[in-house]
Amino acid sequence: MYWVEIDNYAKQWIKEAGTRIKKSFDQTLTIETKSNANDLVTDMDKDTEQFFISKINETFPEHKILGEEGLGDELEELKGIVWIIDPIDGTMNFVHQQRNFAISVGVYEDGVGKIGLIYDVVHDELYHAIEGNGAYMNDLRLKPLKEVPIEEAVIGLNSTWVIKNKRIDSNLLAPLVKAVRGTRSYGSAAMEMAYVTAGRLDAYITLRLSPWDFAAGLVLIKEVGGVATTLNGKPINLLEQNSVFISKPGFHQAVLKEFLNNGEW
Amino acid sequence: MYWVEIDNYAKQWIKEAGTRIKKSFDQTLTIETKSNANDLVTDMDKDTEQFFISKINETFPEHKILGEEGLGDELEELKGIVWIIDPIDGTMNFVHQQRNFAISVGVYEDGVGKIGLIYDVVHDELYHAIEGNGAYMNDLRLKPLKEVPIEEAVIGLNSTWVIKNKRIDSNLLAPLVKAVRGTRSYGSAAMEMAYVTAGRLDAYITLRLSPWDFAAGLVLIKEVGGVATTLNGKPINLLEQNSVFISKPGFHQAVLKEFLNNGEW
Repeated sequence: MYWVEIDNYAKQWIKEAGTRIKKSFDQTLTIETKSNANDLVTDMDKDTEQFFISKINETFPEHKILGEEGLGDELEELKGIVWIIDPIDGTMNFVHQQRNFAISVGVYEDGVGKIGLIYDVVHDELYHAIEGNGAYMNDLRLKPLKEVPIEEAVIGLNSTWVIKNKRIDSNLLAPLVKAVRGTRSYGSAAMEMAYVTAGRLDAYITLRLSPWDFAAGLVLIKEVGGVATTLNGKPINLLEQNSVFISKPGFHQAVLKEFLNNGEW
Repeated sequence: MYWVEIDNYAKQWIKEAGTRIKKSFDQTLTIETKSNANDLVTDMDKDTEQFFISKINETFPEHKILGEEGLGDELEELKGIVWIIDPIDGTMNFVHQQRNFAISVGVYEDGVGKIGLIYDVVHDELYHAIEGNGAYMNDLRLKPLKEVPIEEAVIGLNSTWVIKNKRIDSNLLAPLVKAVRGTRSYGSAAMEMAYVTAGRLDAYITLRLSPWDFAAGLVLIKEVGGVATTLNGKPINLLEQNSVFISKPGFHQAVLKEFLNNGEW
């Protein structure tokens, strides 16, 4: 019952945060650049993280918080109950499009995913799961994922990873792009993980994500029988940046074997 | 007044077609493959094209129709009034996601774009324009596009075009992917053209589109001051397949000069 209670609060707060964000569209966004031009951060990012921190501290003072904006706790381990929050996942979309971004909230206990919430604010679609109880989009229960042959798969993969880049030999993923039916790129890791959970994408592959980008997604994908590892097939570390490969079962094993285990990288 | 009347009918029909498509989600989709596995066609595609043909023939018997499914007229010139229709643009998304597809309707007179309608069915967003009267999303008037520096641009570009492919030297577009702030790929040309019109993407680049994919988009983009050519900077031919590069002004010229005019292709 405890997790249902936490989940109820989390859902209430994520909806409230979404409403605040939608209201902010009328105001001018003050945008500052962080380390580079790709890393946009807005007032709303910080404001939303602070909103969650205040609510959590007030209601569950013993819980810890790990957030993208760094306003929460500095954690070296995942002991106890930890909320892992990305206040606006897909900041570039938020700034350029005022859509296609999500609030991502994962709640973990001693490193085990208990609650996963991804909220596509503008389309008002809340993807949610409590460990062991299945995954939902709003009121709709999401179906267990079925296997898909590689040549019929549509995968989330940004073109960055098939041109020369510092994280992976671009020749490793190019044959996969050729082999599958199609690729898409939405610009929000949380949304793309929600899409895999809902069966709209067969996989999502990226070379560098932080815990707040995937914490909620990992809880969701597990509930529909999906598989999530790094691109080397290793477990994802929740305290570090990782490459991430989540997909339908079967497809995951086949792609690891046929495309990713070939190279030294 | 004549174009306003045609536009009223077109809007009514596109909404009605959208409602029919949404209803079809409950039914099983019968999918057959056309020339290859990438080219999915569903009952709904044909059914929707036939719906438009019946309505147009009944109301405007003198108008001609060019449609993706080939149920309309075979045209060798664009004389008179021609409706150019893609009943479901983004068929793969339609099948895999039941979203992120659009109905695209362009109405041309003697080869000149008069009406452009792109309807994102699931999100109920209708992008519409009558030549010379500005472009709209639902009731919202879209703003004239402003110039954007290359390093701040977010462009629609599928990863297919930066791996080895038969249509373009993949090394031509890779430097552009590196130079811009980010790339996206939504899997529907019409939706990506609507996104450029609405300023959510700064450009959209693809190597092979048919008239029904871009007929409506070309009318829309012109109304907000965007530029549309082939990737060689030539005018787009409305009776043939073309590469398509639509974007904000300034960006278009810069990319043609710095990235696309370099190669022989």
